[in-house]
Amino acid sequence: MAMNAVPLALPPGTTKETFAAFISEVIRVVGRDNVTVICSQNDLKDGTYENPIFTHDIYHVMDKDYMIASAVVLPGSVPEVQEIVRLAGKFQIPLWPTSIGRNVGYGGAAPRLAGSVVLNMGARMNRVLEVNVEGAYALVEPGVTFAGLYDHLVKNNLQDKLWIDVPDIGGGSVLGNTLDRGVGYTPYGDHWMMHCGLEVVLPTGELMRTGMGALPQPPEKGRKHSGRLDEEPGNKCWQLFPYGFGPYNDGLFSQSNLGIVTKMGIWLMPNPGGYQSYLITLPREEDLQQAVDIIRPLRLNMVLQNVPTLRHILLDAGVLGRKKDYTSSNGPIEDADLDAICKKLNLGRWNFYGALYGPEPTRKALWSVIKNAFSAIKGVKFFFPEDIKEYCVLHVRDKTLQGIPTFDELKWVDWIPNGAHLFFSPISKVTGDDAMLQYSVTKKRVRDAGFDFIGTFTVGLREMHHIVCIVFDTKDEDSKKRAHGLIKTLIADCAAYGWGEYRTHLALMDQIAETYNWNENILMHFNEKIKNAIDPKGILAPGKSGVWPTAYPKSVYKL
Amino acid sequence: MAMNAVPLALPPGTTKETFAAFISEVIRVVGRDNVTVICSQNDLKDGTYENPIFTHDIYHVMDKDYMIASAVVLPGSVPEVQEIVRLAGKFQIPLWPTSIGRNVGYGGAAPRLAGSVVLNMGARMNRVLEVNVEGAYALVEPGVTFAGLYDHLVKNNLQDKLWIDVPDIGGGSVLGNTLDRGVGYTPYGDHWMMHCGLEVVLPTGELMRTGMGALPQPPEKGRKHSGRLDEEPGNKCWQLFPYGFGPYNDGLFSQSNLGIVTKMGIWLMPNPGGYQSYLITLPREEDLQQAVDIIRPLRLNMVLQNVPTLRHILLDAGVLGRKKDYTSSNGPIEDADLDAICKKLNLGRWNFYGALYGPEPTRKALWSVIKNAFSAIKGVKFFFPEDIKEYCVLHVRDKTLQGIPTFDELKWVDWIPNGAHLFFSPISKVTGDDAMLQYSVTKKRVRDAGFDFIGTFTVGLREMHHIVCIVFDTKDEDSKKRAHGLIKTLIADCAAYGWGEYRTHLALMDQIAETYNWNENILMHFNEKIKNAIDPKGILAPGKSGVWPTAYPKSVYKL
Repeated sequence: MAMNAVPLALPPGTTKETFAAFISEVIRVVGRDNVTVICSQNDLKDGTYENPIFTHDIYHVMDKDYMIASAVVLPGSVPEVQEIVRLAGKFQIPLWPTSIGRNVGYGGAAPRLAGSVVLNMGARMNRVLEVNVEGAYALVEPGVTFAGLYDHLVKNNLQDKLWIDVPDIGGGSVLGNTLDRGVGYTPYGDHWMMHCGLEVVLPTGELMRTGMGALPQPPEKGRKHSGRLDEEPGNKCWQLFPYGFGPYNDGLFSQSNLGIVTKMGIWLMPNPGGYQSYLITLPREEDLQQAVDIIRPLRLNMVLQNVPTLRHILLDAGVLGRKKDYTSSNGPIEDADLDAICKKLNLGRWNFYGALYGPEPTRKALWSVIKNAFSAIKGVKFFFPEDIKEYCVLHVRDKTLQGIPTFDELKWVDWIPNGAHLFFSPISKVTGDDAMLQYSVTKKRVRDAGFDFIGTFTVGLREMHHIVCIVFDTKDEDSKKRAHGLIKTLIADCAAYGWGEYRTHLALMDQIAETYNWNENILMHFNEKIKNAIDPKGILAPGKSGVWPTAYPKSVYKL
Repeated sequence: MAMNAVPLALPPGTTKETFAAFISEVIRVVGRDNVTVICSQNDLKDGTYENPIFTHDIYHVMDKDYMIASAVVLPGSVPEVQEIVRLAGKFQIPLWPTSIGRNVGYGGAAPRLAGSVVLNMGARMNRVLEVNVEGAYALVEPGVTFAGLYDHLVKNNLQDKLWIDVPDIGGGSVLGNTLDRGVGYTPYGDHWMMHCGLEVVLPTGELMRTGMGALPQPPEKGRKHSGRLDEEPGNKCWQLFPYGFGPYNDGLFSQSNLGIVTKMGIWLMPNPGGYQSYLITLPREEDLQQAVDIIRPLRLNMVLQNVPTLRHILLDAGVLGRKKDYTSSNGPIEDADLDAICKKLNLGRWNFYGALYGPEPTRKALWSVIKNAFSAIKGVKFFFPEDIKEYCVLHVRDKTLQGIPTFDELKWVDWIPNGAHLFFSPISKVTGDDAMLQYSVTKKRVRDAGFDFIGTFTVGLREMHHIVCIVFDTKDEDSKKRAHGLIKTLIADCAAYGWGEYRTHLALMDQIAETYNWNENILMHFNEKIKNAIDPKGILAPGKSGVWPTAYPKSVYKL
């Protein structure tokens, strides 16, 4: 990379000369090969799973170059990250850290503020630093994917001892997904709850460890201890006890712009001693109501031990085919077609995927309770993976629900040609009333916008994440505009009903942050106060989660 | 209370006149009856369980008037708290909020900084605002005790539906214990993990709600909803989903001085459908090693479903009698006496208290695994409460482990005359090596200081809280000094081995905070930066957890 390359988008308020001076310093730190200035749209790379250098949002819902980086930098070590952060402060350059940039549906590798320098933290920092069987945890760098962590267990012959928890797709960063408070589907599905200990580069360039990591640590080499405590001083509980002493700061680094997390501990699930996934098909659209009211007490009582999902038929149809395989219509799919799809795939309008964990007697006891409870719904059918011969979604979920990463679920994005997607993700109570109302409100708007309703309810302990998948055509400007308009409408509709989203695409962060406005936006004022104290120059990810520093005022930049 | 009463200890840098002006304004807000200026030692009240107006640390380890409040104020509502905080800012008066002041062993109702005005948040704000059966949670004010919450369930005939989690003693504040990251003994034993949603008065006097509480809320009156979502707007997930959107700030308000929590959601456990507590006695001191290594995998795999405890014989002996009942010696108890006590009480040197949760087949299956695993230790004995006729600790634990509050464990404080106690609470790995080394290191120091080792290991999912109970004689200055010296030595010893404490008495906060000093005390610098940003006048609980604001510099005030 030439040191004086001029980017398509300069950082706000930065001259070409300052930018060139900054890049030249960064090249000194990380080497020429690890810096790409985005000088034209041709420099935007979609990345591949083999070479995951994403430089933008492959599912951009605004113009491709609206949220565009000035450069992409691949640091190779923590001291390099610290040095880059110090330089960004010196030259007043906004940074946008991504783990690997595969946050699809939520903004990918794009920065919120055009001209920001993207730090691809995971491209070169992708080691599993430790897997501890006794303590059942791993310590990972930003570039470790779910698939990579699983492979690491397999290579070390540990996959029978420790299970990981994976989201629908195995290619994302464990650290990135957890910081974004993503969820998976085993009993360890709440990734944030299961993290333990962070190492963070602060906006000053200083390095901090949270929890027990703030005690003097053993030498890095010595992470695999002899066990002789008297010979190896240093705290060994960084990944065992999350809270430490004094204010518990970890939450500040989730969905935030207060630090760059360089290491994270994550708890792994000991092999439960037995496993059985299952599918329950619900024939009618309105069965959603009864099903959710059946699920609530079972989940609360841990009869449903994991984070189960209640998937709309079109999500499953999308994994198994494209829209044109099922209908010749271009408009939203009608009931008759849905019925035909259900029949063809031998699925219901809603399909419930769960799993049983533990030795056989435990599984049998739980299954009898679950089967009995769901049998109250007329026409439900029960399946184990071995009951179905053809490739089906249950075969995929069978892997996911035991923490084996898959990539099959990527397929539903191809529901329509040039498919891309946006996720709309409101949180609600686990009640049939909430589910039905949320389904009817969102379905109507989705259809009105000319799309098909594709969605799933993911059931946590006391709430549901409703994930509405808005699939649009990236090459059709009208489709893209409709998708963008739709999600804005959905946010407003749901806010009026009192629902809020747990996570969102870059383009919607401001709007959603503004719905969390109780008592004259006190939460945002609090967040801004902390932002300005910890990052007085505002260089770190301005605009993330709607939090803008004084240096890049919301009044100027918000959408 | 006279408006111009002069306190024993004025706030630092405050004149009598300014103090009187402040008190006069506070009286205007809360009424004369709700303000007590501490004009002499006679104004220090120990409080009772019926009238819990504690004004100091009943177990003070330094002079009674060393950590003394200038006044105690009992606010009656959130707006009153806001108004007092605004006045404190105006007059530069440090405030020290306590929930009810029963944080025994950790400082009680005393402020860290002498002359602070103690806000007794719980005396008048003690309502259970909601118990939600469907969502299995409660929303409580600061004054709700564990016993009070349990009574509320009983009064509303809900105790068979929802179980609470209690610490050893039922008299503490649910909110206060949780913010201090206290633990209990059911599967919901990690109180901080089980909290959901806070309402906080910030040091500016502003009111904030965290998580989903930042969405527009339903009217207070309407907290019990008709369920007709379309008729009752406002978010209903404040107590169902902890994280909300953007930075997750809750942790900032635990063990901290960044806000005064006025409401907190806490998850309750649905009745598990069956319960059985048990005791396993371990005959030899060195059985600790093997027992902990047996416990670790069982706990990780949730065969041990709750937070069990491994108690030293003297802790049980203390619940059942006084030292003089067992020995005529005044020095530390020797092995022969310990053997005699074990024999007399039919207990082991260590005694493991756990419970089984769920329907009978589940309990039977778990019990057979547990019994089998512990049988590897020679001479262990297994007991159910119904096996023992005389009053015993298992009868007490049988209640605690199902969330029924008791007060029996207060008794071991009377081990010696005028008994008081300090808790020393390091965290370690769940390994026999750690347990034995921690036991031998602490036991030696405890004995060297002339005390008896009384302690318990409380086993979380991946770590142990080792609670060493230092029982001293409040009326014996030498005993008090030895206790204070002992805990300082223990902190230093354990720091050298890499262990850190999770919580501590006011008098040790500075020392412990200084052990969390990785990378040149970066964590403390971070905490101080946030403290000064959120509380620029430094009025809220200066010194809490070793965090001092610029207004009250650590260099002047630290111990």
